Amino acid sequence: MDNPVWSVIGFIAACLTMFSFIPQIVKVIKTKSAGDVSVVMLLQLSAGVTLWTVYGIARRDPIIILANTVTLTTLCVLLWLYTKYK
Amino acid sequence: MDNPVWSVIGFIAACLTMFSFIPQIVKVIKTKSAGDVSVVMLLQLSAGVTLWTVYGIARRDPIIILANTVTLTTLCVLLWLYTKYK
Repeated sequence: MDNPVWSVIGFIAACLTMFSFIPQIVKVIKTKSAGDVSVVMLLQLSAGVTLWTVYGIARRDPIIILANTVTLTTLCVLLWLYTKYK
Repeated sequence: MDNPVWSVIGFIAACLTMFSFIPQIVKVIKTKSAGDVSVVMLLQLSAGVTLWTVYGIARRDPIIILANTVTLTTLCVLLWLYTKYK
């Protein structure tokens, strides 16, 4: 882990997964359609990232807290869009 | 972090997020429809969890490796179903 390249790879990985639901949000807004999106997936992910945030707070790990808070926010937007356009 | 309850919460969080795409896979197979699913989201997530796996290997962290390998596998199945049913 001494090589800083791994930290860069971790950072890029975090950015990619953290903002991964933005393209889905854009698609639902553009098409005004979300019927094929699984609401069970959205609720399961929301429960999961909420627990990851709790875990991050317990471990005092700001990266885990930040990444999961961002993901949870985008998932809340997506759940709201789902109820609107399903 | 001394309290074992946090490890249990981390474990439940990992299970929830690791298997979060299973409900979406089931839905696509049942409805034979995936048009509303964003392929950009699937590709971005796949790239992200691939880098997380690389990061896990570099950190020699079996939990990061396992969680992201499972997620990557489900994402590959979902991408295959997407190309079939989009």
